[in-house]
Amino acid sequence: MQKITNPEIGSWDIILKRPTVQIDDIESTVTEVFNEVRTKGDVALNKYTSLFDGVQLQTIPVSELEIERANQAVEEPLKKAIEVAKNNILAFHQAQKTQRVAVQTTPGVNCWQEKRPIEKVGLYIPGGTAPLFSTILMLAIPAQLAGCKEVIICTPPNKQGAIDPVILYTAALCGVKKIYKVGGIQAIAAMTFGTQTVPSVYKIFGPGNQFVTVAKQYATRYNVAIDMPAGPSELLVVADHSSNPQYIASDLLSQAEHGVDSQVILVSTDTEMIDMVQQAIEIQLEDLPRKDIARKAIENSRFIYFDTHELAMEFINAYGPEHFIIASSNEQFYTEAVRNAGSVFIGKYTPESAGDYASGTNHTLPTNGYAKQYSGVNLDSFLKSITFQKISEQGIKNIGNAIELMAEAEGLLAHKNAVSIRLKDLN
Amino acid sequence: MQKITNPEIGSWDIILKRPTVQIDDIESTVTEVFNEVRTKGDVALNKYTSLFDGVQLQTIPVSELEIERANQAVEEPLKKAIEVAKNNILAFHQAQKTQRVAVQTTPGVNCWQEKRPIEKVGLYIPGGTAPLFSTILMLAIPAQLAGCKEVIICTPPNKQGAIDPVILYTAALCGVKKIYKVGGIQAIAAMTFGTQTVPSVYKIFGPGNQFVTVAKQYATRYNVAIDMPAGPSELLVVADHSSNPQYIASDLLSQAEHGVDSQVILVSTDTEMIDMVQQAIEIQLEDLPRKDIARKAIENSRFIYFDTHELAMEFINAYGPEHFIIASSNEQFYTEAVRNAGSVFIGKYTPESAGDYASGTNHTLPTNGYAKQYSGVNLDSFLKSITFQKISEQGIKNIGNAIELMAEAEGLLAHKNAVSIRLKDLN
Repeated sequence: MQKITNPEIGSWDIILKRPTVQIDDIESTVTEVFNEVRTKGDVALNKYTSLFDGVQLQTIPVSELEIERANQAVEEPLKKAIEVAKNNILAFHQAQKTQRVAVQTTPGVNCWQEKRPIEKVGLYIPGGTAPLFSTILMLAIPAQLAGCKEVIICTPPNKQGAIDPVILYTAALCGVKKIYKVGGIQAIAAMTFGTQTVPSVYKIFGPGNQFVTVAKQYATRYNVAIDMPAGPSELLVVADHSSNPQYIASDLLSQAEHGVDSQVILVSTDTEMIDMVQQAIEIQLEDLPRKDIARKAIENSRFIYFDTHELAMEFINAYGPEHFIIASSNEQFYTEAVRNAGSVFIGKYTPESAGDYASGTNHTLPTNGYAKQYSGVNLDSFLKSITFQKISEQGIKNIGNAIELMAEAEGLLAHKNAVSIRLKDLN
Repeated sequence: MQKITNPEIGSWDIILKRPTVQIDDIESTVTEVFNEVRTKGDVALNKYTSLFDGVQLQTIPVSELEIERANQAVEEPLKKAIEVAKNNILAFHQAQKTQRVAVQTTPGVNCWQEKRPIEKVGLYIPGGTAPLFSTILMLAIPAQLAGCKEVIICTPPNKQGAIDPVILYTAALCGVKKIYKVGGIQAIAAMTFGTQTVPSVYKIFGPGNQFVTVAKQYATRYNVAIDMPAGPSELLVVADHSSNPQYIASDLLSQAEHGVDSQVILVSTDTEMIDMVQQAIEIQLEDLPRKDIARKAIENSRFIYFDTHELAMEFINAYGPEHFIIASSNEQFYTEAVRNAGSVFIGKYTPESAGDYASGTNHTLPTNGYAKQYSGVNLDSFLKSITFQKISEQGIKNIGNAIELMAEAEGLLAHKNAVSIRLKDLN
């Protein structure tokens, strides 16, 4: 870990630098897979599933029988836990529903804004060592709340050609019936172009490795939207003398276990706290099954001391962390002054894990500094707003002349004429 | 123009096809300009302004004196017209402000969502034959309402190295003080990386030609967001026997005069109306100063007859027009059933020009079918939402076990431990 004391503002850029993703190297593979999926459809999916996942599939869609079996395979306590999370996520996203906005801007000029669902969305759920069923809750629940007509899931099969039961259970619980055994670049390509079995979608959501990330970015060339650009997960904790070093250590480690490239940062206005957290990390690290990964991420971590809360906050806003834990007695100051963060966790009993799983907030959040301009996934991510207007005779009389003058000044005479022709009839 | 009667669903894809933008050809130029602006800053801006715009600039920022002179140069009636538009746009976007969303999802688990402004935004205003000052209103007004701290404008200078007075007047009226004489790819690169004079921003807004469009897309590789991908402007009008063919012709022509690649579509449940609109277009076309452009766009237009409103609506939703005029007696049906459109104009006295300039809705809208997944620019385009949570002792006791179980099932033991360590202290 790198310890830094009162870094000068000029040096922040270097301290805050995230690892660069080498897009160019991966892009040629992405281009190749996209071209093949586009032209050959399912044949290409089967080829790449065999090549990358090492399995020959009988069928790409998950069958009803598989879902039924999954329902039996998942243990009751885990089902209950998922239920708790589901209810909280539902409650928080339900509350995000908005009413239509209607304004008569000028007498006779009625304008309104309504949100309507994105009809077809695709959720990508990564495979790997563990089944990330929590991400299904985070994406499928708001998609259903928004009223998306078609919600599909793509997720890679394991070596036996199966999907983990808890993934299937959670998908079914959230009402998603179309699940496809396809992962990686080929899954993103399938959702972009559509194949014989996998339908194309208008927007793709979900996390993934570097290949999936570059594939999602690439998909945007083909009239598909994505939830947000992605990078390694991040946690920044701000602490002071009042913090509990054991809790902070556990939070930093929960971030560190995600991957060796996880971004772990401690900002503190108390030097002793930095030392205490460091010691607590060393002890807690020993008991973790993923300690090799976590240790590596901790080695790359930065522990930074600042004299004042104000400077600390400035630094944090310049970083724009995905997750931001306020473990400081100066809670209110940080809560109000934070401008750039994905999700903020306040106080002693609010670990990042809560938001990752079950408190109700979404865990699909902007990384890599994107908190400066992107929201995390929320209900609106599955909606788009459409504006409407209806103008009466009186309305066009009221604003018609302004339109004519402006259109003329922009040299667009047909725009002017569309008003003039109406005004003439009304006189 | 292409007249089509009751096209079968299988043929819609071909009928609805938009012109393809050749990204690859332009991208090498974009890459070159970006690299040079990144390394050489203002020197590169001056070089490309000289090369592409044919003018040697003394200084890149617009001076206070230039703004003052512009204020005197713009005529009173146009100022009044801009004032009308400004007030309406302000009213409609002001109404889009939302409150924070707060939910106690479980006793002791408090979650909330707040919107905070994107701190730095850049507005691109194209040059060309006419000054598009209306776009300043559409972008600067919501940016200021959102509370963006830094709002800058880049716009190309004319051959004399000047910016049109009405652009400067409108910018000043909207409170934008930082205006830079730089256009094209180099402007987008400047806002992406920052130069000695032009600050970098977090999000870039605004229309432009193909070069600007590709440059904006390219900028997203460098941690910058953009308002939306862009394509040629579009209008689809739905008509029936009750429509006024003169009005429809004037609306289609106002779209057609934008450029030869403008997308102009008429859908009608009445064949006679199609013929009448065609005749009206021929007559009105003759009087337009931009008739060569408009004629070309009309030649590429499609006039489509459908037997039923339902089929017509299905077709329109499959297209997802940027602008959608409902000139049909079946107003309510179309208004309720539209799923994919940027902005909808209802009734006889609601020409597209109204929304382009002065009714209050935004004219920066999704083209190229992006209405299926993107909103037009609105107040939220300048904000991002941040989630917050604060959990009490009771709260973590209530959901702690669910988190532990889920984290364990995902194989993330440090995530589990962050909860266990707290629960232990509370027992």
